[in-house]
Amino acid sequence: MASPIPPLARPVLRSTAQLPLRPAVASSPRPDTVAGRIPIADARPTTPGGRYAASAFAGEAVRFQVTAFREGHDLIGVHVRLFAPDGTETLHRLSPLHNGLDHWTVTIAPLQQGTWRYRFEAFADEYATWQHAAELKIAAGVDAALMREMGAALLSRAHTETDRSSADRVALQQAADALRDRSVDDAQALVVVRDPLLAAAFAERPLMALVTLDTEHTLLVERERAGVGAWYEFFPRSEGALRHPDGTVTSGTFRTAANRLPAVAAMGFDVVYLPPIHPIGQRNRKGPNNTLTAGPNDPGSPWAIGAATGGHDAVHPDLGTLADFRSFVAAAGDNDLEVALDLALQASPDHPWVASHPEWFTTLPDGTIAYAENPPKKYQDIYPVNFDNDPDGIRAEVLRIVRHWIAQGVRIFRVDNPHTKPLQFWEWLIATVNATDPDVVFLAEAFTRPAPLQALAMAGFQQSYSYFTWRNTKAELAEFLGWISEDTADFMRPNLFVNTPDILTEYLQYGGRPAYKVRAAIAATAGASYGVYAGYELFENVARPGSEENIDNEKYEYKFRDWAGAEAAGDSLAPYLTELNRFRREHPSLRQLRGLTIHHSEDDAILVYSKHLPAALTADGAADTVIVVANVDPHSARQTMIHLDTAAFGVHPGDPFEVTDLITGAEWTWIDHNFVRLDAFHEPVHVLHVKAHR
Amino acid sequence: MASPIPPLARPVLRSTAQLPLRPAVASSPRPDTVAGRIPIADARPTTPGGRYAASAFAGEAVRFQVTAFREGHDLIGVHVRLFAPDGTETLHRLSPLHNGLDHWTVTIAPLQQGTWRYRFEAFADEYATWQHAAELKIAAGVDAALMREMGAALLSRAHTETDRSSADRVALQQAADALRDRSVDDAQALVVVRDPLLAAAFAERPLMALVTLDTEHTLLVERERAGVGAWYEFFPRSEGALRHPDGTVTSGTFRTAANRLPAVAAMGFDVVYLPPIHPIGQRNRKGPNNTLTAGPNDPGSPWAIGAATGGHDAVHPDLGTLADFRSFVAAAGDNDLEVALDLALQASPDHPWVASHPEWFTTLPDGTIAYAENPPKKYQDIYPVNFDNDPDGIRAEVLRIVRHWIAQGVRIFRVDNPHTKPLQFWEWLIATVNATDPDVVFLAEAFTRPAPLQALAMAGFQQSYSYFTWRNTKAELAEFLGWISEDTADFMRPNLFVNTPDILTEYLQYGGRPAYKVRAAIAATAGASYGVYAGYELFENVARPGSEENIDNEKYEYKFRDWAGAEAAGDSLAPYLTELNRFRREHPSLRQLRGLTIHHSEDDAILVYSKHLPAALTADGAADTVIVVANVDPHSARQTMIHLDTAAFGVHPGDPFEVTDLITGAEWTWIDHNFVRLDAFHEPVHVLHVKAHR
Repeated sequence: MASPIPPLARPVLRSTAQLPLRPAVASSPRPDTVAGRIPIADARPTTPGGRYAASAFAGEAVRFQVTAFREGHDLIGVHVRLFAPDGTETLHRLSPLHNGLDHWTVTIAPLQQGTWRYRFEAFADEYATWQHAAELKIAAGVDAALMREMGAALLSRAHTETDRSSADRVALQQAADALRDRSVDDAQALVVVRDPLLAAAFAERPLMALVTLDTEHTLLVERERAGVGAWYEFFPRSEGALRHPDGTVTSGTFRTAANRLPAVAAMGFDVVYLPPIHPIGQRNRKGPNNTLTAGPNDPGSPWAIGAATGGHDAVHPDLGTLADFRSFVAAAGDNDLEVALDLALQASPDHPWVASHPEWFTTLPDGTIAYAENPPKKYQDIYPVNFDNDPDGIRAEVLRIVRHWIAQGVRIFRVDNPHTKPLQFWEWLIATVNATDPDVVFLAEAFTRPAPLQALAMAGFQQSYSYFTWRNTKAELAEFLGWISEDTADFMRPNLFVNTPDILTEYLQYGGRPAYKVRAAIAATAGASYGVYAGYELFENVARPGSEENIDNEKYEYKFRDWAGAEAAGDSLAPYLTELNRFRREHPSLRQLRGLTIHHSEDDAILVYSKHLPAALTADGAADTVIVVANVDPHSARQTMIHLDTAAFGVHPGDPFEVTDLITGAEWTWIDHNFVRLDAFHEPVHVLHVKAHR
Repeated sequence: MASPIPPLARPVLRSTAQLPLRPAVASSPRPDTVAGRIPIADARPTTPGGRYAASAFAGEAVRFQVTAFREGHDLIGVHVRLFAPDGTETLHRLSPLHNGLDHWTVTIAPLQQGTWRYRFEAFADEYATWQHAAELKIAAGVDAALMREMGAALLSRAHTETDRSSADRVALQQAADALRDRSVDDAQALVVVRDPLLAAAFAERPLMALVTLDTEHTLLVERERAGVGAWYEFFPRSEGALRHPDGTVTSGTFRTAANRLPAVAAMGFDVVYLPPIHPIGQRNRKGPNNTLTAGPNDPGSPWAIGAATGGHDAVHPDLGTLADFRSFVAAAGDNDLEVALDLALQASPDHPWVASHPEWFTTLPDGTIAYAENPPKKYQDIYPVNFDNDPDGIRAEVLRIVRHWIAQGVRIFRVDNPHTKPLQFWEWLIATVNATDPDVVFLAEAFTRPAPLQALAMAGFQQSYSYFTWRNTKAELAEFLGWISEDTADFMRPNLFVNTPDILTEYLQYGGRPAYKVRAAIAATAGASYGVYAGYELFENVARPGSEENIDNEKYEYKFRDWAGAEAAGDSLAPYLTELNRFRREHPSLRQLRGLTIHHSEDDAILVYSKHLPAALTADGAADTVIVVANVDPHSARQTMIHLDTAAFGVHPGDPFEVTDLITGAEWTWIDHNFVRLDAFHEPVHVLHVKAHR
């Protein structure tokens, strides 16, 4: 009986519960109270404190939720009205969560980039209230005639509404007539009361009273890459570097590094992230393994930015020219790869800023410039920027630099240690850049406490490194995945890097190859964005003693790796990563931040979660569900019963369903309780696709 | 070295960390970002969503808390500036919680009633930053001369600040001189760096930079009774009622009921709450045990308000006259008791409104007025008010009624089922009444879901009935007490009634006399407000079969109770209640909502919590601590080890302290781990006072 929504020429969104558009008319608003006639509160998506707008990426399944209730027993309904950036207005019906908290929810995927507005609208649902009472009272023989007359009056009123389809209106009049017809007995009248088609007509076009409008909220929708992507980090100077018999090295260049791009693309990555590509300081340059004295052939840390040949707007001469860099970006594009550049706002003692703008640093009473330090430690290859001496000058310079790289084709910046610079500065920079270039994405390397981490995300960073590397047990991961997919999902999009040049966790150091598989599989399937630093696929797991980073670290020296040889010898994780990235491309639920449900297992190392995207929110209209079962103990085989909340992915509890292991191709018929066995030394992880059901 | 704060003539507050007043001067605010130079967020006290002001009662220890942090390693400080309703401005220093969440906190007890404003101010703490670095670096032999010179410069600068005491200024100059004196070696200089008196001077009067002001917030402070009180509910018609040989009864009156007041006062209660005192309808009057037919001598439910003799502004003729009621209120006052009146906005079919204002009810298609119902059940002695037909008329009438009773001396209203009336209506009513009569307190009988319960509290209700009666196990109570004393304390003040005419829980029905002791002891010590409905002290524990309320319920009949006889026979809980109320009067920590800490016990029925009020917040300047250990299993003796977080009440972990059991007088020396044994049939609860320590 419901009239289908005409498909939009270019849909601005996908929705699990879109309704025909109707204007909102508030009933009797009273200006003298905060509460509306029907109280509405706690609108989501939102940010803690509400001072920043919530954000999402295009295509993200966003949960719109609100708390709404009314006094007494009468039933209410809740709608949300969305205004797309282009002004397109749509209306959607929320469902009660029935969790005792008066929560109402609907999931909508906005597709159009820009600032959306949304508003919740609650109303007394006159049909639902009557239907509920009539069903109980007529069945109980209480006030049957009265309830039938009230229903007939209500249906007749709906019949007169001209925005209903003529088929609906005929059905409404027939139902009203039946309720009034004394030859129809109460048992037959109950059939009318319970008619699901009537209920559907009123769900789509309710009889509303006491309509109450919440205040308007905003949601910033950014491009898909703001939230979704598989990242690959590598040092261009290592790719194509040549070691000579005398021990000297000829650096890799943008040209030689570009030769690596097809392999990265073949693994299925979306983004190549390059550590800083600028000239590197000579003074106090670090030697191998972070030693304080560099030899003449040591290339230094790329994060010690600035030399006689230039600063943040220059290219290291060893890597080539700015034109070479542009060619590299173009080559990446030819391979469907985006280039992410590092933005590390600090200077080597040789940086041109030191002479031209000493006020951008801190000068000590002895006339020297202060090094970076964590007392009593000092980092003598780095001068930190002092953002307070000349804030306007620094703003202008950083904006100039960012726009310079945007002009070279860069659209993604990975920002080094943003939590050591003023939050205010980032808020301004990102807003200013995005005002003219809304496609530019900033990733915050904010390995810091929750408050600054979340504040940076709210203030504008499209993505954030996360605590993923330090969440390794089942309990830690279950809590972490709930946190990112639910608690902070309205404003923070984590990138689950499995390793970095700075981070080689004990789990990887001591977990062997199974650990590398487990961490990659979880990152790639649980995270809408995840990342790998080159060498991970070669299981490079030896740390510098006393540190949590690789020995002979690439930050201070060239690395010579034989990718093809390792793969031929079966000593490479590249084929596994390639498979994981293929799963991500083929399964839209894996490219979502939300829709993740943790399921129960009886073993303390078997982690179980599902990702689910309803049919209404996928491009092809088919629901997508992936169940991941991971043995996070890399030293043993584990077997256990697992218990699935199958309703989370649309399967009625107890119903059987077919799953295929995307890794091994094995197929099983599962129900909500299943036995699993995962051998860390064989395949530590099931990635199971649930076949279409119903 | 700290200069003492001159005591105020009439202090407007007590504070754990008050500072001399200094003006706030914001440094370089930038209007183009939400973030300040030092980010400040999540200010408390607040309400969820922030649309209503937080509230407290006069003398309440309120936790002012905020999240504040800055980039990098430099240290910050946080102040809160309070503006009392009379304009008095005070400044207070917050302490970091060191919980990894960048939380800062200070506890302040506002004493003055009215709307307070408060604002957090964060700043770079230049002394603390230098002190931290200098201590580490000079000890490590790194940059010692530089650190000494930086410190000397900083101390010299502080020396020039004219708002420091001359003693402080001398000390600052001496310290600066010592740091600059080359004959003072680094080991001696470290003594200066570590000087606790210098640290104290800078804690009181920091060297501030990058001063950032948060937005201003408000806190509504109401009179103490809004949050604190022991309530006693009784039906005046039962007190002094006479049963005649023919079975008829002469009702108790306000005059006979007043004879009960001295005994209620002697038990130590603060408030007597009377069910509705208005004329009771005849039509469809309920008989004993909620039967549908009343006999000629059945008095009916007081909540079926309205008869030929009047409605909500009238007094039931059986109880006396309006003058008698005023005398009753006066008699209560003579006994230091306040009278709380019931405000039940509903009508019997005989209410004068039915004829004069039928539009205030719902008329059905058959011309009848709709009864209250919960389909398919109907309540035929009650017409619910329809607030939407004539909202302005109903507002005016209810305001008239409330002001009528205020004119009779009533300052407390216990509101019946507020969650069945529009939230908007209550918000308007309470604001309107409190605008002219800020002392009037409204208690919400909102036994409903969390969302409406909390919304009513935020919208203005000074107090709320709570879920206490249904929280009986140790786990339930621990969660509940944390919820009321922490999660919702900024806006909701629960009243922990142990029973009501509507609620006799299974715990009381089957727990015997120990259950009555346990519940009263927990309510009286955990709740700043708690209540008892008459009969509780006689262990009335027989329920009407199939219900959760007393059999032969007083709602429908007179009750004849022999208070003195029961007490003489040792069959009364009155002496125990008297003791509990005495503890409440003697121990200010028990008259607080906050300051409650749950401690660990190894037994699943031994609940342990402490209430603590720091010395700075008590009227007599002595800290007050009470530890409650309750065996909530009323059927057994339990023994276990308990483990106290003694820091919660100012005792260093491991230090011994003396406790006295206020119930038995027993004295023990305790440490943080103690053995307890509690026999339900002897004394199920320890109420332990911690003797002054340190």
